[in-house]
Amino acid sequence: MIPPLRWIDDGWRVDLLDQTRLPVEETWLDIRSPERMAEAIRMLRVRGAPAIGIAAAYGVVLALRGEVRDVDACRLATEAVEMLKATRPTAVNLFYALTRMQGRINAHRASNGNDAAALRRHLLEEAHAIFREDLEAGKRLGAHGLSLLKGGMTVLTHCHTGGVATSGYGTALAPLILGREQGVDLRAFVDETRPLLQGSRITAWELEKSGVPATLITDSMSGSVMREGRIDAVIVGADRIAANGDVVNKIGTYSLAVLARAHDIPFYVSAPTSSIDLETPTGGSVVIEEREASEVTHGFGRQTAPTGFTVYNPAFDVTPAELVSAIITDRGVVRPPYPEALRSLYAEITA
Amino acid sequence: MIPPLRWIDDGWRVDLLDQTRLPVEETWLDIRSPERMAEAIRMLRVRGAPAIGIAAAYGVVLALRGEVRDVDACRLATEAVEMLKATRPTAVNLFYALTRMQGRINAHRASNGNDAAALRRHLLEEAHAIFREDLEAGKRLGAHGLSLLKGGMTVLTHCHTGGVATSGYGTALAPLILGREQGVDLRAFVDETRPLLQGSRITAWELEKSGVPATLITDSMSGSVMREGRIDAVIVGADRIAANGDVVNKIGTYSLAVLARAHDIPFYVSAPTSSIDLETPTGGSVVIEEREASEVTHGFGRQTAPTGFTVYNPAFDVTPAELVSAIITDRGVVRPPYPEALRSLYAEITA
Repeated sequence: MIPPLRWIDDGWRVDLLDQTRLPVEETWLDIRSPERMAEAIRMLRVRGAPAIGIAAAYGVVLALRGEVRDVDACRLATEAVEMLKATRPTAVNLFYALTRMQGRINAHRASNGNDAAALRRHLLEEAHAIFREDLEAGKRLGAHGLSLLKGGMTVLTHCHTGGVATSGYGTALAPLILGREQGVDLRAFVDETRPLLQGSRITAWELEKSGVPATLITDSMSGSVMREGRIDAVIVGADRIAANGDVVNKIGTYSLAVLARAHDIPFYVSAPTSSIDLETPTGGSVVIEEREASEVTHGFGRQTAPTGFTVYNPAFDVTPAELVSAIITDRGVVRPPYPEALRSLYAEITA
Repeated sequence: MIPPLRWIDDGWRVDLLDQTRLPVEETWLDIRSPERMAEAIRMLRVRGAPAIGIAAAYGVVLALRGEVRDVDACRLATEAVEMLKATRPTAVNLFYALTRMQGRINAHRASNGNDAAALRRHLLEEAHAIFREDLEAGKRLGAHGLSLLKGGMTVLTHCHTGGVATSGYGTALAPLILGREQGVDLRAFVDETRPLLQGSRITAWELEKSGVPATLITDSMSGSVMREGRIDAVIVGADRIAANGDVVNKIGTYSLAVLARAHDIPFYVSAPTSSIDLETPTGGSVVIEEREASEVTHGFGRQTAPTGFTVYNPAFDVTPAELVSAIITDRGVVRPPYPEALRSLYAEITA
C-alpha cells in the first residue's frame, strides 16, 4: 500500500512523495505550511484526483501549526482553504475536500470560536477522515477485485491507477496491492503506456514498492504476451463509465480489450462508483480530448519524428460494454447486462 | 522513391544519406573512399540489408578513384572487398554483393589484368546492376501491392520497411511510394513502433519525403483508429515467412493482425521472395531474439522506468498464417492456402 503522503503527528507536518521525481528517485518532501502544500499540488508533485483532495485537506491543518492566537485561528484556516482552492481549478476532489474542511471551520466559529487548539484537533480529524474514507473504498474495491483472481495468476495492467494517485490502494492496482498484503501470489505485466509512460514511470515503481513481481513491456507487446499464455486477466481503470457499460479510459485500453477477447482472457474494469455516469448514455457521446503532438514527437527529451509531422493523439478511447467481462467497484462486482446492473447500483447508492 | 545513396559520375563519388541523423536532419555525406564507406556501414549511417549490400558494392568501386596504376588495380579492389566484409559480420546481403564484386575482379585478373580503367568500368557496372536489380524487385513488389489498393484508401503500417533500407521503394512502403509516383491517392497511418521508434523516426520521414500524406500515432492507438473507420488496409513487412505462411516480423505486428481481423480490415504482408524460408515449417520454430531492457527503460534519452526493473523485450513476434489476408512479393500476390502457394512460388523461382 503506497500512500501519496503521511501525516506526522510529532512535528505537525506531512511527508509527501514527490511524484515528479519518479521513477528515478523516491524523494519525500517535508511539508510544514499551507503555502508549501499549495506549491506541491500546483507543480504536480502530488497528482491523481483523490490524492490531491487529501493533500489539500492536510494543507489546511498546517495553517494552525505552531503558536496560533485563538482569535486568529478561523481566519488563518480559511485563508489556507482559499489559497489551496486556487491550485488546480478543475479538480473536483480538491473542492470536495476543501468544502468539508471549510464546514469544520464554520462549525467551530459558530460554537466555541475562541480555542485554536480545538479547531486544530477538529481539522486534523476531518483530514484523517477524508484520507480514511478513500482508503476504505480502495480496500473494498481491492477485495472485490481479488474475488475474481486466485493465487498464481498474472494480471496485465495499463497506465497508472495505483496508490499514489489515491490514498494508497488505487483502482486497477488495488486487487494486486491488497492481494500482496494478504499473501496471495499474484504477478503483473505492465504496459509502458505511451505517450506519457505512466505505466513504466509510476505503475512499475509502485508495484516494485508493493512487492508485486512485475514485468514491463511496450504497448505493442500485449497481444504477443497474451498469445504466449502469460496473462490470466486484464485489469484497467476508467475515467468514465457510461450508463450502458461503455468504458472511457486511457488510449490503448480498447486495443487491450479486443486482444483479451481474441485470447479468451477476462477483461476487467476497476473504478470507484463515482466514475459511473448515468447521465452519459454511451461511450459514443463522450468527447475525447486530443492532446498536443509534442507528447508523441518529443516524448522524453528527444525529438523522435520529423518536425511538424501530422500526429493524431487522442488521450482516451472507448471500450464497448460487450468487451468488458465485469466492472469492479467499491460496492461490488457489476456484471452484464450493464444498463440494468449500473442502474440498480446507483439506486442503492442514492437510497 | 527515396534511395539510400546516389552515385555521382562527375567526381566518382557517392552521396549517402546519413540515417543516424533522421528524422531531425537530412544530411547527405560525400563518400570518396572505401574507408569512408566502411565507416558509414559500421556506424549504421546506412542500414537495412539490401541498402548495406548496395553501399558496399559502390565502396569497392571507390577503391579505383583517381590515378591508379594498372598493376595495382586488382589488389586495391580486393583489399576494399575484404575491408568492407568486416563491417557487419552477420549481414547476408553484404556478402552477396561483395561476392559479386570479387567475381568481377577475378574475371578481370584472369583476362586483361593490366587495365585499371577497364576494371573500374566493370566494377561500376556491377554495382549499378546490384542497385538496379533491387530497385526493379521493389518496383514489382510495389505494383503487386498496388493491385490490392485503390485511390482514397488509407493504409496503416508498422516499423520501417521503406526505401532507404533498400534501393528506394522498400517492402511494406513500396505500394504507397509507387502509388504516389503513379498519382494514386493513398494515405497512411504510421505506428511509432516502440521500443526503437523506426516508424516515427524513419517511416514518417520517408513518407513525408515521398509526398504520401501520413499521420503518426502511438502503437496503442491502432485499435482505436481502426474502430473509428480510418483504416482500409494494414501492410507490414516480414523478417521471415515460414512454409505454412506464419510471419515473423517486428514486435507489435501480431497485435495489429488480431485488431485488423476484429475490424474486418485486410492484413497484408509485403516482402521479397528472399524472406520466404521453406526450411522453417512454422513461426513456432523460430527463436525470437530478446533485446536489452534499456531499449524500453531508456528509450528517449531519459530513464523512464525504475532502475533494474524486469523487462520483457522480444524484437519480433509471430503472426499465424490464418490472420494474413495475402502475402505481397516481387513475384506476385500469394493467397491462402499458403503451404501450397508458397511451395509453388518457390518451385517457380528455382525452375
